[in-house]
Amino acid sequence: MKSTYHITVRGYELDSFGHLNNAVYLNYAEQAKWEFLNDNKLLEIVNQYGLFPVILENNIRYMHEFKLLDKVRIETEWICTHKILHFKHIFFNDKTEVKSCTISGKLMFADSNRMVSDIPDEIYNFMQEDLN
Amino acid sequence: MKSTYHITVRGYELDSFGHLNNAVYLNYAEQAKWEFLNDNKLLEIVNQYGLFPVILENNIRYMHEFKLLDKVRIETEWICTHKILHFKHIFFNDKTEVKSCTISGKLMFADSNRMVSDIPDEIYNFMQEDLN
Amino acid sequence: MKSTYHITVRGYELDSFGHLNNAVYLNYAEQAKWEFLNDNKLLEIVNQYGLFPVILENNIRYMHEFKLLDKVRIETEWICTHKILHFKHIFFNDKTEVKSCTISGKLMFADSNRMVSDIPDEIYNFMQEDLN
Amino acid sequence: MKSTYHITVRGYELDSFGHLNNAVYLNYAEQAKWEFLNDNKLLEIVNQYGLFPVILENNIRYMHEFKLLDKVRIETEWICTHKILHFKHIFFNDKTEVKSCTISGKLMFADSNRMVSDIPDEIYNFMQEDLN
Repeated sequence: MKSTYHITVRGYELDSFGHLNNAVYLNYAEQAKWEFLNDNKLLEIVNQYGLFPVILENNIRYMHEFKLLDKVRIETEWICTHKILHFKHIFFNDKTEVKSCTISGKLMFADSNRMVSDIPDEIYNFMQEDLN
Repeated sequence: MKSTYHITVRGYELDSFGHLNNAVYLNYAEQAKWEFLNDNKLLEIVNQYGLFPVILENNIRYMHEFKLLDKVRIETEWICTHKILHFKHIFFNDKTEVKSCTISGKLMFADSNRMVSDIPDEIYNFMQEDLN
Repeated sequence: MKSTYHITVRGYELDSFGHLNNAVYLNYAEQAKWEFLNDNKLLEIVNQYGLFPVILENNIRYMHEFKLLDKVRIETEWICTHKILHFKHIFFNDKTEVKSCTISGKLMFADSNRMVSDIPDEIYNFMQEDLN
Repeated sequence: MKSTYHITVRGYELDSFGHLNNAVYLNYAEQAKWEFLNDNKLLEIVNQYGLFPVILENNIRYMHEFKLLDKVRIETEWICTHKILHFKHIFFNDKTEVKSCTISGKLMFADSNRMVSDIPDEIYNFMQEDLN
């Protein structure tokens, strides 16, 4: 399963060198996930089961900086098992096509008692489809 | 070389599940670096040479959540070569001693022309000392 | 002079009650300003003169909360004198049309010596036009 | 009722001009509130009643910038009615004693149904004491 998300670099996300701060890449990656879940009606399933996502790992390689108002395109590849959702985000500068960052990692879902939950079948099945 | 930094979880750093947001760990790790450089008079050397730090990699493992006003202790191990500063942060809950997160990664220094700089000798030499 | 800016509420901008955090409204207001300056070729003038904006006042009234993925529309009114740029942002929920927040304030421009600068004529003149 | 809170400026809170970003002052003000409530055992009362704070107004005057690792001292005056908690934060540079910012505003408490709540008697009574 693949998805694409676009986001624009905001002024307050820059560090004092005028570059996108290293932590903000994780903010972007998180938002790419929320939007993907929402766009595909998976967020309502997560909410319906009373689950919340728990990030287990993030592995980030920074390759090129982003600057004020740069257009970022995040291409994401998702691989879903019954317990773990693996993700790989690749950040591109949408104008220059320069590959600027990769973030690979994994997340699980927990319930309100903070117990690990199986990934709901609706999500698991959706993730097996190859829509792209 | 080792260093220790203490930080308290702030309310606005929590996500809507009441847990410290996954990106904020990188904010804490960054601040641990600034304070370490400053405490050891290395920040003024960085500034004197007109350099700025560029994070190359962050590899994060999340193990236990933090909550509002939790006291976090970050223990950092530093290994310095002539080009790259390697860091490994371990986050502990300072009250329960639970190991909650690790971040390993590396950074370099760049000059105002965005060229990779050697790590200044003053910093390199300091990092070879074993003060702990 | 009036302008409009659209922005979507991100997951990490929520507080632990699931509402947009009170400080993030200022982030949105700031970004609305950068985009306005950029859209109208004023940002390049600011940069050309080596100026940077300095916020002097922000007066915020919060009326209705925003939640995850809400679409926000910010309508801004600008009044420019030779020294001060006055702004009034009104935040609407773009779906429900509920007026959710107002931020009125003022900013000036400073030069690299941190001295107050006159607002460049190009910006002042632009602001006198009534494009709406 | 008066209170004092200390906080240190972090690197990632600076804007690209090296100054504390205008929105971060509200983060600091929020954290000063959480710490005040917690230090005086009021946070547990808020939680016990299932309430959460809702900021109604923030009026900010920026007077002097803060820079990396500056020590900030926030002196707060609190005035409590049965519905509204009024606050006035004054930000000082703790080293130079320069008054750098004021934030005055008000908040209320809401319950889990998002209904306005009276301020709990325990908090109201505490706020009438003059401990300083």
